[in-house]
Amino acid sequence: MHEVSGDLISRMLDYAKKVAKMTDSFMLELLSGEPQYLYDASKHLILAGGKRLRPLVTVLAGRMYGLPEELGVKAGAAVELFHTFTLVHDDIMDRDEMRRGVPTVHVKWGESTAILAGDLLYAKAYEALIRVGEDAGDYDRGFAAIKQLTWSAVTVAEGQALDMDFERRWDVSVGEYLKMIYKKTAALFRTSMVIGALLAGADEEEIEKIAGFADNIGIAFQIKDDILGVFGEEKILGKPVYSDIREGKKTILVLHALQHLSEKEAEELKRILGLKEKATYEELRRAAELIEKSGAREYAEKLAADYVRRAEEALYSTSPKDLEARDLLWAVATYVIQRRK
Amino acid sequence: MHEVSGDLISRMLDYAKKVAKMTDSFMLELLSGEPQYLYDASKHLILAGGKRLRPLVTVLAGRMYGLPEELGVKAGAAVELFHTFTLVHDDIMDRDEMRRGVPTVHVKWGESTAILAGDLLYAKAYEALIRVGEDAGDYDRGFAAIKQLTWSAVTVAEGQALDMDFERRWDVSVGEYLKMIYKKTAALFRTSMVIGALLAGADEEEIEKIAGFADNIGIAFQIKDDILGVFGEEKILGKPVYSDIREGKKTILVLHALQHLSEKEAEELKRILGLKEKATYEELRRAAELIEKSGAREYAEKLAADYVRRAEEALYSTSPKDLEARDLLWAVATYVIQRRK
Repeated sequence: MHEVSGDLISRMLDYAKKVAKMTDSFMLELLSGEPQYLYDASKHLILAGGKRLRPLVTVLAGRMYGLPEELGVKAGAAVELFHTFTLVHDDIMDRDEMRRGVPTVHVKWGESTAILAGDLLYAKAYEALIRVGEDAGDYDRGFAAIKQLTWSAVTVAEGQALDMDFERRWDVSVGEYLKMIYKKTAALFRTSMVIGALLAGADEEEIEKIAGFADNIGIAFQIKDDILGVFGEEKILGKPVYSDIREGKKTILVLHALQHLSEKEAEELKRILGLKEKATYEELRRAAELIEKSGAREYAEKLAADYVRRAEEALYSTSPKDLEARDLLWAVATYVIQRRK
Repeated sequence: MHEVSGDLISRMLDYAKKVAKMTDSFMLELLSGEPQYLYDASKHLILAGGKRLRPLVTVLAGRMYGLPEELGVKAGAAVELFHTFTLVHDDIMDRDEMRRGVPTVHVKWGESTAILAGDLLYAKAYEALIRVGEDAGDYDRGFAAIKQLTWSAVTVAEGQALDMDFERRWDVSVGEYLKMIYKKTAALFRTSMVIGALLAGADEEEIEKIAGFADNIGIAFQIKDDILGVFGEEKILGKPVYSDIREGKKTILVLHALQHLSEKEAEELKRILGLKEKATYEELRRAAELIEKSGAREYAEKLAADYVRRAEEALYSTSPKDLEARDLLWAVATYVIQRRK
């Protein structure tokens, strides 16, 4: 495994801050207009914080092949605007009330405005890419980037539909689960980095390698998210503990637990998951205990690490112009697997 | 006024059928995928019918400047997919239960799936334009068409936000109303025809003229829609009568009526509009009677006719290659102002 020094991590974190600041500034520039309440609702989750992980990897993948940072940031903003749109709509669908430590958009502005704010963010994602194409003076590459974003828009919607379908079923296989998280989460990581590389003019072979890195890191990221959805700390996460249990989600943890617990314990876990919002804190805690007992946490941690390893292979098979950008991308990947929120 | 013969109208209607059939076939090709329930929900309103007015004007505006029909149809499908997305989301926001004679998407599949089906249709609108750009082998024009669609995506969201805001206010001016319907409805007519002309390679001056035609026809179309929202017949419309009164909408009819009725009658009208879903059929009927009495219907019919006249001037100032396409476009415009649904 390529070593990631403390110094590299700290350089990566500094760079992440810089990219986040530039991205936010461009996103807020795009999100000014009338009527005010619609734009306020659209900006809400952006102003509430967030990791800006996707713009960071967009910029770094772009830099690997010579894309100027300013263009990478604008492309990254497109992905982040798109990501924010999915959060706003998903929160309505999942009835989530808190996100990033603040009330979700539909809780604060009502459902109609939240639907519309999401729709606006979606359009603004395209507007950001159009700006990139115009700034780059290269409509062919702009067109290719837009095609890539559109692919993920379709794929992410399919992934969310699978996720909602899984909530109604008990017979979800690990294979189905992995396909779902590929579509729901990894596809947008793929798009982030592919757009960066595409806009830089990287050739197809390099783009495939970057895409392979992105796919694997995206899946690892989601598995880690699932772990945090059960075992994460409320204060650090900015959303209630046990949120995935409360929603009855068939995450990799639950799927593993159901297969490895005794029949009696598996039934108990199913019963609690079926309660959804009606589950008491004590029941949620018990469900987490059963999941822990089944070995699902270690299993998921190990699975995520496997994906990170595959990601590493793909990344270090590339031939970038900017080696530092690649190392920083690798630092992001290792950081992702160790994060606490 | 350029005369529209019965023969021209009948040729236009035949051509409309042909374009609708081709458009539907391309839309349904794009709307096949997994999971099935998501795609079924996305196809629902398309299969329920609809006028396909936007694809028709896209194809005709394209033909005016030499765009092959097949490309015009695909571009028209993009606009129709986008339009369908706005219908699905608007129906959720407006709590409309019927559309095109069938239950709305959220009534049939639930709100979460309806939100997602709308999101998917949105993405598919872009996918359609990407296909056009690829088929035309011209990424510059494809990029320009995508930019135009994105402009309307932002504008239509702003228009819907204004519309929702107006529901909460009594002091909406006619100027505000016209700005709102420009954004909510005319903007997409503009985009339909501008995309057609852009893809055909029309020059800027011609595009401006076509856009002027589209803006005016779009506003006329919406005013007519408002008239039908109060005075239309349920069986013909495919949605309940008085639907705009039931939603308390500040349409041009209501704005005119409030200004021209006696204070007592205006208060009565306001009271009924404020009841929303709680209004009885008798109250809805009374509100329509007050609106009629105020002269709002004639006023709106006349205003719509004014916009049609301006549209005519813009259209016949163009220099198209295909004169028949222009006449057919004009037949569409006159048909729009006389329609009963």
